[in-house]
Amino acid sequence: MTTTLQDCRALDAQDPLHALRELFDISEGTVYLDGNSLGAMPRSAPARVAEVVTQEWGRDLIRSWNSAGWFELPRKVGDQIARLIGAAPGTTIATDSTSVNLFKVLSAALRISAQRSPGRWRIVSERSNFPTDLYIAEALCKDKGWELVLVEPHEIADALKDEKLAILMLTHVNYRTGAMHDMAAVTKAAHDAGALVVWDLAHSAGAVPVNLTAADADFAVGCGYKYLNGGPGAPAFVWVNPRHADSCWQPLAGWWGHDKPFAFTPDYQPAAGIVRYQCGTQPMISLAALECGVATVLAAEPFGGMAALRRKSLALTDLFIQLVEERCAGQGLALVTPRDHAQRGSQVCLSRGQGAYAIVQALIARGVIGDFRAGDGAGHPDILRFGFTPLYLGFEDVWNAVEHLRQVLESGEWQRPEFNRQHAVT
Amino acid sequence: MTTTLQDCRALDAQDPLHALRELFDISEGTVYLDGNSLGAMPRSAPARVAEVVTQEWGRDLIRSWNSAGWFELPRKVGDQIARLIGAAPGTTIATDSTSVNLFKVLSAALRISAQRSPGRWRIVSERSNFPTDLYIAEALCKDKGWELVLVEPHEIADALKDEKLAILMLTHVNYRTGAMHDMAAVTKAAHDAGALVVWDLAHSAGAVPVNLTAADADFAVGCGYKYLNGGPGAPAFVWVNPRHADSCWQPLAGWWGHDKPFAFTPDYQPAAGIVRYQCGTQPMISLAALECGVATVLAAEPFGGMAALRRKSLALTDLFIQLVEERCAGQGLALVTPRDHAQRGSQVCLSRGQGAYAIVQALIARGVIGDFRAGDGAGHPDILRFGFTPLYLGFEDVWNAVEHLRQVLESGEWQRPEFNRQHAVT
Repeated sequence: MTTTLQDCRALDAQDPLHALRELFDISEGTVYLDGNSLGAMPRSAPARVAEVVTQEWGRDLIRSWNSAGWFELPRKVGDQIARLIGAAPGTTIATDSTSVNLFKVLSAALRISAQRSPGRWRIVSERSNFPTDLYIAEALCKDKGWELVLVEPHEIADALKDEKLAILMLTHVNYRTGAMHDMAAVTKAAHDAGALVVWDLAHSAGAVPVNLTAADADFAVGCGYKYLNGGPGAPAFVWVNPRHADSCWQPLAGWWGHDKPFAFTPDYQPAAGIVRYQCGTQPMISLAALECGVATVLAAEPFGGMAALRRKSLALTDLFIQLVEERCAGQGLALVTPRDHAQRGSQVCLSRGQGAYAIVQALIARGVIGDFRAGDGAGHPDILRFGFTPLYLGFEDVWNAVEHLRQVLESGEWQRPEFNRQHAVT
Repeated sequence: MTTTLQDCRALDAQDPLHALRELFDISEGTVYLDGNSLGAMPRSAPARVAEVVTQEWGRDLIRSWNSAGWFELPRKVGDQIARLIGAAPGTTIATDSTSVNLFKVLSAALRISAQRSPGRWRIVSERSNFPTDLYIAEALCKDKGWELVLVEPHEIADALKDEKLAILMLTHVNYRTGAMHDMAAVTKAAHDAGALVVWDLAHSAGAVPVNLTAADADFAVGCGYKYLNGGPGAPAFVWVNPRHADSCWQPLAGWWGHDKPFAFTPDYQPAAGIVRYQCGTQPMISLAALECGVATVLAAEPFGGMAALRRKSLALTDLFIQLVEERCAGQGLALVTPRDHAQRGSQVCLSRGQGAYAIVQALIARGVIGDFRAGDGAGHPDILRFGFTPLYLGFEDVWNAVEHLRQVLESGEWQRPEFNRQHAVT
């Protein structure tokens, strides 16, 4: 028996997380399936941001560094994020961009590795990792005379056998396919092979359960503006396993990482722990918005937290896959994201022989906002990418999205010229 | 004949820039002399920030990367800042923090120098440079086996004779003393000596006329939240002389510096020019506030721009010095900032045998907001620091500030216990 709109409405009625969508202000008629790229705006953000601007900055001026807690905000928001990624308090900082943070931790990992295993000088990553991760690693390798080796996911196990391997750098959930690694198993295998592991949680934090402590990972970075709903370009975060935190300077040794920044001494003395992974002054207005975003994810804690969000996320993506297969059969769509729950993040990607870009545009014109990622001509096809944020999406939204997709395909609407101008969207 | 309050009011009445204070919303009774640390809030900022939050993010969501021009914003704001620092369009980017940007340009300078003068491996800076600049240089030297040599300002000329000198790294206006270097002369002397020059414009941009092009400087960075009024922790900026812009990768080679970031290729291809000095995604809400701040400085253009702001700034600091000397004589205050206009930034610093911290606190309690910078026990005394932003300060403000200072000193009010708890303020 196929699923109906009424079934979807019944699922929403039974969903204990359904009320959390009231934390957001999404326009009527919009089905927002791009929270994996830019999370939706929390309802609390405009007032909080206005308070930071008009009162903390405008009225209290310089005093707010102390009175409004600006100095502590990167650590405070870091500790809030820590609750979502299985990290201890005092091990996570909200700061800088993901790329900059990756440079910090990859540099640190490289120094630690060089000290304990001087004969190892290779970083292994996935060819389809998010490019900025590869660029940062490439630049660092170029600078240090190291080598960056890119492999396919199924080649990782073999790559661990390489005696020159120093660092395995992976993104937990792949930005294109939505495929997810088993963090604990991969970390253990890499450690057994003598390598350090750096995780990028860009598509994981706030999206899937993560336990960095249990996995005993070495370093992690992540993004504030995707599933953490922190706003466009929100500060990112960085986590360092406490066993490594004091073992070296990271190269972006700015004053916010100094043990006594207001002593204004000419020589650098790194602060203990994660604080030394700070560099310069952070954008407080954007950081305040990030705090609002993180709060929306923490608001799920009374309902079961990340485990409950994960259950709903899988139910949403299962339903989407099922409805696409039931209602868009014969339209040339193929599933790129793994069916296996253990290997699936919070997104579903589809490929199609042609038209992926135009179909996404036609859907956007109807208010169903997903995105397009171009293929690379080397085994990765063009994809239609749909992110499912269980905080603000319901089962009826999934029905509506598939219904629009069906109509766009059956009517040939996507072939209209206006949907076929290629135009980059992040 | 001594200056009176009436004289000050007359100066305000004649001041063509006086109307610009209406661009700001400073509380009645506040004399804000800390714009060198955190610039005041432009009146335009709350509405613009609210628009970015509720409409660009909240309503338009991911589409705003294109429709609201988020992608171009770092370059757009960079071009606006360029007009204030004598830089050509397309040579300046608003991005990241000053510390992170310094790491980029210092790394690039080091690479360029190592290539053309392999025997040079020293960076020279001032001992009293802002510490984060020294920390970034120290960490880079440590990593590269280079040496950071710190000198006093009067020793710079001698330091240029060092055949190992590769890079001279200076802050144009000293954060403690307000002393200003002759950028053109120092740059020429350093070039003649075979060195590259990196300028930090943290206390210059929007405060004093700067002409990087005429000085033929090599690299520059600067701060968005001081005289550019960009808000707490606003993104900083980076400028690279076009002759260097394409000559190397900077190490923070993130996707925003890629030639085709949305091609998502696994290998890094740096964009031409200053764009490669971008790294990751920028905090758009804070960046929008920075644009409002830069606009307040650009609003002086019809009135004579930076030259007119400079004339008023010098008149304000001259008046402040004169009034302190007339009205606070015998109170143990000494002028730290140079009297010579050519050597003075837009701030005045005073020292006192004791009580500098408490006097600043007592002034703050009266609404006269300056700040305190601790001495280093090595020739630099504790200072009372007063920044003068000609955009929102008038001559009567200067009168009032000195009158409060006189009362705080003559009454002994500063000796009250509540003003004597030391507490760090940036």
